[in-house]
Amino acid sequence: MSLTVAIPVAGAMGGGLGGILTANGATVLTETAGRSAATQERAAAARMTPTDAAGLGCADIILSVVPPAIAIETAARLAPHIAAAGGKALFIDANSISPATARAVAVVLRPTGAAFADGGIVGPPPRPGGKLPSLHVSGPGTERALVLRDLGLDVRPVDGDVGAASALKMCFAAINKGLVGILAAVAQAAEREGAGAALSGLLEENHPAIAARARKALPDMYPKAYRWVAEMEEIADFLGRDRAESAIWRALAQVYSDLAADSAADGQAIGLIETFRKRVAAG
Amino acid sequence: MSLTVAIPVAGAMGGGLGGILTANGATVLTETAGRSAATQERAAAARMTPTDAAGLGCADIILSVVPPAIAIETAARLAPHIAAAGGKALFIDANSISPATARAVAVVLRPTGAAFADGGIVGPPPRPGGKLPSLHVSGPGTERALVLRDLGLDVRPVDGDVGAASALKMCFAAINKGLVGILAAVAQAAEREGAGAALSGLLEENHPAIAARARKALPDMYPKAYRWVAEMEEIADFLGRDRAESAIWRALAQVYSDLAADSAADGQAIGLIETFRKRVAAG
Repeated sequence: MSLTVAIPVAGAMGGGLGGILTANGATVLTETAGRSAATQERAAAARMTPTDAAGLGCADIILSVVPPAIAIETAARLAPHIAAAGGKALFIDANSISPATARAVAVVLRPTGAAFADGGIVGPPPRPGGKLPSLHVSGPGTERALVLRDLGLDVRPVDGDVGAASALKMCFAAINKGLVGILAAVAQAAEREGAGAALSGLLEENHPAIAARARKALPDMYPKAYRWVAEMEEIADFLGRDRAESAIWRALAQVYSDLAADSAADGQAIGLIETFRKRVAAG
Repeated sequence: MSLTVAIPVAGAMGGGLGGILTANGATVLTETAGRSAATQERAAAARMTPTDAAGLGCADIILSVVPPAIAIETAARLAPHIAAAGGKALFIDANSISPATARAVAVVLRPTGAAFADGGIVGPPPRPGGKLPSLHVSGPGTERALVLRDLGLDVRPVDGDVGAASALKMCFAAINKGLVGILAAVAQAAEREGAGAALSGLLEENHPAIAARARKALPDMYPKAYRWVAEMEEIADFLGRDRAESAIWRALAQVYSDLAADSAADGQAIGLIETFRKRVAAG
């Protein structure tokens, strides 16, 4: 069987998944026209096949991995082409969006006749020798999505309808990025008050896994802080605007926004965090 | 050497530390008049010696372990008695208070001539066979506080002045209780959206230490949530009212307040959290 998969944008994640699929014998279509040089290079390196929106609509499976803000727009743009191709495609929305947004994508695609699966990707983009990210899927198209396992992807069905896979992704990100934000906030306070050395010792002694997480996850965060602002807002909406919990992630959005601004300015806050982090590394 | 230590209130922590001190040969004074039956029983079980405020003021070391809201009041009440006894005591404020409040306690005691150490206790009250809580101390009285090591306490000097030990305690609590609050919030959302089973699996796989923390720390929290509200507010103030970070702990205070109310009402939220927690336990 030669399967054709469309990945509309060959970003870091889309290009990485595309490379795995082509290495396993799939034809992988993508749009490169008007995209950045980096995207075009990733598509070429992954042996993806350039096409246009009409071409994407003819694929057996469309795997949408785009910036969360354009998830609905991407589905809407491809919908007429999917319909024109007979509506036989499976559309997997694998974006970091809330369950409500995932359901909106499903509604946009309903008239096309395409099957739909909600998806959520956990883990960083594939790297040689690294662990594969996992693609969690839920909803009516789940069974059909499992064929991607034969093409090298780590596909995992989630019990539940459209929304469950997106909720899973939101929840996992809420815990991970919540913990990193807490560590970034507390690290600064500890250093300002002269308690950094003692705190790193306490963490190593009582919670070695959290200490290890601080060592690794804090520096990974600095260059991504600006992207996490919108993601924290999305998580806050997902948790429910009327619930007290959502204010935690609303505050985290502001913390990441401040860190992104700090990174672009004098780096004072990130300097304090790094002072703390290096103590942990030495602990 | 027979040392006399005053622990004004034999609460769970004060009584527990008192028992260790008396077992190691110290005379430990406490006030029981007007206290609850539980406090009087703890004092007796720990072989503490009942006295009044004047008696407490005569001790070599006064170890203040009281509800945070009465830390300053306790110091102010004992101050004239410490002065009357010649101001030779060492006063250790070991309460969960912000560095600013610890500095205020030091100011209250300055006219007495007593030495002062800021303290912070990390860990639960002593239990037979359990790990001892650690008493972190900073400020001018630190050297003198080390004598409590000979009496069985795990005393750890923190470099820095009055405030550093309190900051350490605040920072450690901010991380621990911040993570628990995040887990409690996300657990509910995951269960509401049908993603609980998948999330527990992802946590076990990717962050086994956080999964283990969820299993143990969530049920420990339910009966304490009402106490954590004020502690989260204190942490928010400590982080700085003008800083974005403080809003995270302000929101956590509301989350714990809601959980305390839930616990007293229908337990719907805690029921969802427990559903999630049991999945992790089974994972």
